[in-house]
Amino acid sequence: MSSLHFSIRRRRFSPPAVLATIYAVFIVLGAIALWLPFSSADHVTFSDAFFTAASAVTVTGLVVVDTGSDYTLIGQIIIAFLIQIGGLGLMTFAALLFTMLGLTIGMPQRLILRDELGQTGVSELLALVRVVILVAFTAEAIATAILMFVFVPEFGWTHGFWQALFHAISAFNNAGFSLFSDSLSGYVADPVVNITITLLFILSGLGFVVLADINRQRNWRKLTLHSKLMLSGTLGLILFAWVMFAILEWSNPATLGGLESDAARILASWFQAVTPRTAGFNTLDYAQMENSTTVMTLSLMLVGGGPSSTAGGIKVTTLIVLALATLAFFRRQERLNIFGRSLGMSEVMKVLALTALSIFLVAIGLFLASTTYKGDFLDLLFEVCSAFGTVGLSRGATGELDEFGRAVIVLIMFVGRLGPLTLAFFLATQSKPKVGYPEGKVFLG
Amino acid sequence: MSSLHFSIRRRRFSPPAVLATIYAVFIVLGAIALWLPFSSADHVTFSDAFFTAASAVTVTGLVVVDTGSDYTLIGQIIIAFLIQIGGLGLMTFAALLFTMLGLTIGMPQRLILRDELGQTGVSELLALVRVVILVAFTAEAIATAILMFVFVPEFGWTHGFWQALFHAISAFNNAGFSLFSDSLSGYVADPVVNITITLLFILSGLGFVVLADINRQRNWRKLTLHSKLMLSGTLGLILFAWVMFAILEWSNPATLGGLESDAARILASWFQAVTPRTAGFNTLDYAQMENSTTVMTLSLMLVGGGPSSTAGGIKVTTLIVLALATLAFFRRQERLNIFGRSLGMSEVMKVLALTALSIFLVAIGLFLASTTYKGDFLDLLFEVCSAFGTVGLSRGATGELDEFGRAVIVLIMFVGRLGPLTLAFFLATQSKPKVGYPEGKVFLG
Ligand SMILES: [K+]
Ligand SMILES: [K+]
Repeated sequence: MSSLHFSIRRRRFSPPAVLATIYAVFIVLGAIALWLPFSSADHVTFSDAFFTAASAVTVTGLVVVDTGSDYTLIGQIIIAFLIQIGGLGLMTFAALLFTMLGLTIGMPQRLILRDELGQTGVSELLALVRVVILVAFTAEAIATAILMFVFVPEFGWTHGFWQALFHAISAFNNAGFSLFSDSLSGYVADPVVNITITLLFILSGLGFVVLADINRQRNWRKLTLHSKLMLSGTLGLILFAWVMFAILEWSNPATLGGLESDAARILASWFQAVTPRTAGFNTLDYAQMENSTTVMTLSLMLVGGGPSSTAGGIKVTTLIVLALATLAFFRRQERLNIFGRSLGMSEVMKVLALTALSIFLVAIGLFLASTTYKGDFLDLLFEVCSAFGTVGLSRGATGELDEFGRAVIVLIMFVGRLGPLTLAFFLATQSKPKVGYPEGKVFLG
Repeated sequence: MSSLHFSIRRRRFSPPAVLATIYAVFIVLGAIALWLPFSSADHVTFSDAFFTAASAVTVTGLVVVDTGSDYTLIGQIIIAFLIQIGGLGLMTFAALLFTMLGLTIGMPQRLILRDELGQTGVSELLALVRVVILVAFTAEAIATAILMFVFVPEFGWTHGFWQALFHAISAFNNAGFSLFSDSLSGYVADPVVNITITLLFILSGLGFVVLADINRQRNWRKLTLHSKLMLSGTLGLILFAWVMFAILEWSNPATLGGLESDAARILASWFQAVTPRTAGFNTLDYAQMENSTTVMTLSLMLVGGGPSSTAGGIKVTTLIVLALATLAFFRRQERLNIFGRSLGMSEVMKVLALTALSIFLVAIGLFLASTTYKGDFLDLLFEVCSAFGTVGLSRGATGELDEFGRAVIVLIMFVGRLGPLTLAFFLATQSKPKVGYPEGKVFLG
């Protein structure tokens, strides 16, 4: 952390550049560690290890080898460590970033002048980091204890404990890595696993800003606009996806139709409705789903979770502002009003940049990956969206990629993980243009 | 036209609603006319005729039956008439609309106050309509004469004249309908057909605002910002797509690789590079192209041509402002500057609404169509984008759609044709919100 703070104070490197460098270093170190004989089976190449490390650090969960069988216990511990570093590292960084923007946990509405940034005490930053880490470890410890009730009877104390801990770490960090080759499909009807895992990644996917706000206020009316938008937006997306998934897949014999009870179908619908934003576990096979379900899943993967969270995607708040701006435009308003607050044009500009960049990134990634991938197009589109949203769900294309395709997916995961926050940082140093031009007029269709 | 003017003056119906109604009426009447025995073969159902009429009026060009063999000469004349009505009708409407917005051909920069709209003389509107119709008929007549040099030797005077006229009408209106079952594939190496057809649809795809501006100024520096953006944007997109298409398909034996000479390959690359925005003819089989080429074509189809033209899509100017706004955001500017002019936030808001609505429309259309379509996903995605951009290119999915799928594609074509202009109209009656709220803060990732 000292190098991060050092660079911020000295202003020689921008924090996003520092974060990107740290992540890249962790990926390379992780790749080497995973490649060593004590970590993995003989047939795991450096390319496999590199892809795994990149997927773990970016908390994506796309895999080219089987985590449970191709990596030793040491390899799995390294993966869990990389996931924890990747997830917590980013949350911690987000905490630092929001502090720099004058939006600390304790005072989300107070704006600290940029020149005072150097005076933001090290102790305050450390306190923030401490909160983030405390929340993470507490949540993971509780989840591990609960999951042990399922895994210990099945695998014994040692292995059962490791299964519980690994999946708790993976779930809290929205990483989607599983030690089972079919993810959590074996527990499709198990309420303990379903509820524990989904609660973990839904909560952490809200973002620590929201969690801290809830912890302080415990009263809907006193919550910040951001928290209200995140909570209502998340609830709306979950309910919508839950109902839609059940309707679309109910009679598909390869998915819901193959389950024994209606309760199991409703539970599996719940899991598959919440995992695309951006947990990445699955209890049903995404390759067997209807194309309509897959289109909905693609949309959910691109949306993702909340800012300053372990989730990826364009973020729920971006989607809401995008929808509100469009509605406001149709209502001929120049301002966006929601929950008694107004949003300015700078938010609209941010949303536009984020959306354009995301479309561009997905399109370019899809184009590049398609130059060497010869399999099914939908499978490839699915993996690219999964990588961009750091989701980790797969229809099987990732395993069939050549080295170039893997490099593309790694880059998308990397940019997908760093992109939005990097954008957010640029906001902190907004400047006015020096020359004023006369207004021009362009017709837009 | 009298009913249109009537409604505008009386302000009882919004012009977009009037246009949508007129289009719907023309589609239904066209469907009935095409369904009658003297228009079509026995096996052409009302559903086929309705789809054809909708495709013609929206100048899309997607077909479910073969235009050249399943429709009689009378049926083909009806189709040409529907294309001309659909293309010219919209251009004329655009002329009226831009006049209402105070942006007549003669005075593009002068803003007429909204209250003076009632005083915009009928004569001025009629003059505008006359210009649009004159340009269309002149261009189509010249193109017909040129194309006759190719088609008359091949088909004789009567049939050759009809081939030339039909393709000239179809090309100028960006309709993409062809009397050949493989579109213009038979003329893949014919420079006369390639250049005449592409010039027609590129010129008309610029939009009559640009054409009128060029006609008045004939000097780059004096052109309006809108014209400069359209011309440079179109040139950039064409060059980019031309080079990329050649690179991607050069050695594909099913497309460029199967042609006899490098000159034919370069000519075919040119044609396939310009037709996706949004002409819809083809001289190579899109179903045989590489997935990478298809991804590029999808992007081009969604971009489309210029506002107030026969082209569809989000429009070239929208793409440019989207790119500029994103760049400005990264450069921490609050204004967009280009060609010595500045664009305000209202343009950004417009672009955001257009982009969000387009993504939403394509996603919903794709989702709905995928509920009953069981074929290849990429083929369906291609048809949906083709319908949204009123392009008409196909990888074969349209012919396999059931009644529901056809209804979805018809709706997408309809909204794709009316959408952007409908949005533009709302701009004319922008109003301020009545209540001011305190500013809220939302993190966007
Ligand atoms: K994930
Ligand atoms: K067309």
